[in-house]
Amino acid sequence: MKLAGWTKNNNSSVLQHMLKECAADDVISFALGLPAEEFFPAEDFANLLQNLLSNRKKVLQYSPPIGSLRKHIVGLMKLRGVNCSEEQIFLTSGSQQGANLLVNLLLDRGGKVIVEEKVYTGFQQVLKPYEPELLIVPTNAREGVDLDALEAILEKNDDVAFFYTVTDGHNPLALSLSVEKRNRLAELSRKYALKIIEDDPYGFIKYEKDYLPPLRAIEPHNVFYLGTFSKILAPSLRAGWIIVPEELIGHLENVKEASDINTAPLSQHLIDEYFNSGKFPAHLENLNLQYKIRRDAMLDFLDKNFSGRAFWKPPQNGFFIWLEFSRNLDTINLLRFSLQKERVAFIPGNMFDVIDEGGICNSMRLNFSALSPEIIGIGIERLARAVELFD
Amino acid sequence: MKLAGWTKNNNSSVLQHMLKECAADDVISFALGLPAEEFFPAEDFANLLQNLLSNRKKVLQYSPPIGSLRKHIVGLMKLRGVNCSEEQIFLTSGSQQGANLLVNLLLDRGGKVIVEEKVYTGFQQVLKPYEPELLIVPTNAREGVDLDALEAILEKNDDVAFFYTVTDGHNPLALSLSVEKRNRLAELSRKYALKIIEDDPYGFIKYEKDYLPPLRAIEPHNVFYLGTFSKILAPSLRAGWIIVPEELIGHLENVKEASDINTAPLSQHLIDEYFNSGKFPAHLENLNLQYKIRRDAMLDFLDKNFSGRAFWKPPQNGFFIWLEFSRNLDTINLLRFSLQKERVAFIPGNMFDVIDEGGICNSMRLNFSALSPEIIGIGIERLARAVELFD
Repeated sequence: MKLAGWTKNNNSSVLQHMLKECAADDVISFALGLPAEEFFPAEDFANLLQNLLSNRKKVLQYSPPIGSLRKHIVGLMKLRGVNCSEEQIFLTSGSQQGANLLVNLLLDRGGKVIVEEKVYTGFQQVLKPYEPELLIVPTNAREGVDLDALEAILEKNDDVAFFYTVTDGHNPLALSLSVEKRNRLAELSRKYALKIIEDDPYGFIKYEKDYLPPLRAIEPHNVFYLGTFSKILAPSLRAGWIIVPEELIGHLENVKEASDINTAPLSQHLIDEYFNSGKFPAHLENLNLQYKIRRDAMLDFLDKNFSGRAFWKPPQNGFFIWLEFSRNLDTINLLRFSLQKERVAFIPGNMFDVIDEGGICNSMRLNFSALSPEIIGIGIERLARAVELFD
Repeated sequence: MKLAGWTKNNNSSVLQHMLKECAADDVISFALGLPAEEFFPAEDFANLLQNLLSNRKKVLQYSPPIGSLRKHIVGLMKLRGVNCSEEQIFLTSGSQQGANLLVNLLLDRGGKVIVEEKVYTGFQQVLKPYEPELLIVPTNAREGVDLDALEAILEKNDDVAFFYTVTDGHNPLALSLSVEKRNRLAELSRKYALKIIEDDPYGFIKYEKDYLPPLRAIEPHNVFYLGTFSKILAPSLRAGWIIVPEELIGHLENVKEASDINTAPLSQHLIDEYFNSGKFPAHLENLNLQYKIRRDAMLDFLDKNFSGRAFWKPPQNGFFIWLEFSRNLDTINLLRFSLQKERVAFIPGNMFDVIDEGGICNSMRLNFSALSPEIIGIGIERLARAVELFD
C-alpha cells in the first residue's frame, strides 16, 4: 500500500516499548515520568464536575478557549516570577502539543535547530518530520549546557530557528540551571536574537525554598515557554499552555484549530473551577512536600547502595535523578538483565542521545515521583543487586 | 521576527471569524454545526464521573488507549453495517485530529488529492500545509459527486494519494449518497486502488428508517473511516476514532504520540462507562427523534417562506439543509445585510469552495440542530424578510 514517504523510516519510540515492557505488575519501574496517582485531587474534581454538569450543560459544547483559565495561568506564572498577560497565553492539549505548535511556528523543513546532546525523546519526535540540521551543544548532569559552546555556534550561524532546553528539573539530566547560567543564556538570546523554547513540565515541583526564575522571566521577548497541568494536576486532562509574544497568538490559533479544533473544554472548565475553588496553592505545596519525601528516600537508598561507585546530584526540581557509574557499565544490557533477574526498570541514558555515538553507556535516568518511599527502597536494592550480578 | 515560511500566507479561517460574529445573544445563527446542548447526557456523565473518580484514581493518569472503548466502537459501527475489529480502531482527539493523522499517513507534500468542488473548511485547513495538487470533481446538492468525472480523473492519474468525501449528511451539501453511487464508488476504489477518506461526523444522525451502508461497509480495504463522538455524545470530550487496516495502526500510534501523547484518558473512560451503562442506544434514538423534529420544522418554514424561489432537499442525515436560490442572489453580501438588519446568520455556500471561482454565490448552508423549532421558525422568517429587503 502506497503511504506517505516518512512511513518507510518509521520506528516505534523506545519509550513506547518501554511503557509496555515495564508495565508488568511485579516490575518496580523507575522508567517513566508519571505523577503519583495518590496525590491527584480526584475528590475535588468529582465535586466540581458534578456541579458543572448539573448547572452548565454548555461545558459539554464546543467553545473558544476559556478566558478565566488563562487568567489563572497568569497568576500561576507569577509564582515563578514570570510576568505575562492573558493575551500571551495559548491553551494546548498538553505540552507535547504545545511543542508541536511552537516548532511548526518557528521551523521550516531542513532549518537549523540547536539542542543539547541529550533531549527528551518526545521533543525529538516533534523535530523529526522537519529533518532539521541539528547543531549540538555539549551538556552534562553536573553543570548543564555549555554556554561557551552555544555562543561559538551562534557566532557561526545567524540562521538558527531556535534553541530547545529545560531550565528546571532537566529531562533527562535532572539538573536545574544556575542563576548565572540563566542570566548568560538570556543575554545570549538577546545578543544573537536567539529564540529559545523553554520546556517546563517540572519547574513547579521544587525541593529548595524558592523558585529560580525561568528564562521567560528574564527574557520575555525571545523565550517561548511551554507549561503543562500534567504534573501539577493530572495528565489525563491533556491540558497545558504556551506563553508567546501576543502577535503570534493568531498563527497558533489557526494551526491549533486545524489540529484538533480546541483543547477539551471539559478539561478547561474543570481546571478553571479548581483554581476558582482556591485549593490549588495548598495542593501544590503538598505535592512539593510529598515528592520531596520520595526524592529524599531515593537519595538515601542511593547513598546506601551506590556510594563511591556512581555520581548523582540531588535534583532541585522535577521527578528524576540522573545516575552515572564511575566505571563503564553497559546500562542497555543492564536494563535487560535487571528486568529479567530483579524485575526493576530504568531508562538507559543514551536513549536520550540526539546522535547515536556508539560507545558504551554508563548512565541511567531514575524516576522517583511515581513510587512510595518503601517501594523506592526495595527497587534501589534490587537495582544494586542487578548491578552486582551483572558486573 | 523570523518565523516559519507558512506564516506569511496565513489567514484566520472564515469559520473562526463567523463563530465570533454570530455569537451575539440576539443573533439567530444557522451558521455552525453545533449539537444541541439540551440533549447532552450531562446528568449521566456527572454520575459516571463521580463514580470513576471515587473508585479509580488512575482515570486521571497517563494511559494507553482503552481497549473496552474500542470494543464499544466496533459495536457502534455494526449499527451502520460496518464489520471491523478492535485492532483496526484508532482513538483520536476528535475527527479533526483524525483527519490530520490520516492525511499525514497518506500524503506527501505536493502530492495529488481528489476532492469535490465543495469541501468542509476544516479539512481544507488540514490539506493546506501539504500544498497538494488538487484534482477537483464536480458535485451538487441534488445527486452528489459526479462519478464519471471521478473515473476520468483516475484514468489519467495513477498516483492519487486519496479521495476525500462525506457519504452521509454531506458537509456542506447536506446530501446522503444513493446506494447505487456508494456501490460504484466502492467499485472505482477497488478498480483503481483508490484510497478514500470517508469523513462521517453526521452519519449516525438519521431521518429515514434505516442506515445506508457507509463506504467502509462495502470496501473495507481502501476506505479509511473517520468517526467522532462530538455529534452523538458531546464535543467538549474531544474524542473520535479512525478505522484503518490493522497494519497501519503502528504508524498512527507514532504520529499521535508525537502530536499529543494520547486522547484525554478522562474522556475515554467516561465514554467507555457511558457505553457500559447501556444507555447509549436510547440516547441515540432520542437524538434522531429530536433532530428530526428540528429538521422538519426547518423544512416547514422553508416551504412557507421560500417555496418556488429556492431549491432544497430534505436531508436524510446530519445537521444541515442546503439552500440554492433560483435567481442569482449574492449570499455573501446577504449575510452582511442579514446580520445587520435582521440578526440572522448562515454560511454562504461559496465559503466551502475549494477554488475561488469568482462569480456570484446564490447558495447557503443552514444548520437546524442547535435551535428549538420555535427559534428556527423565527429565524427563517427573519431570513425571508432579509432576502425580500435585499433583493
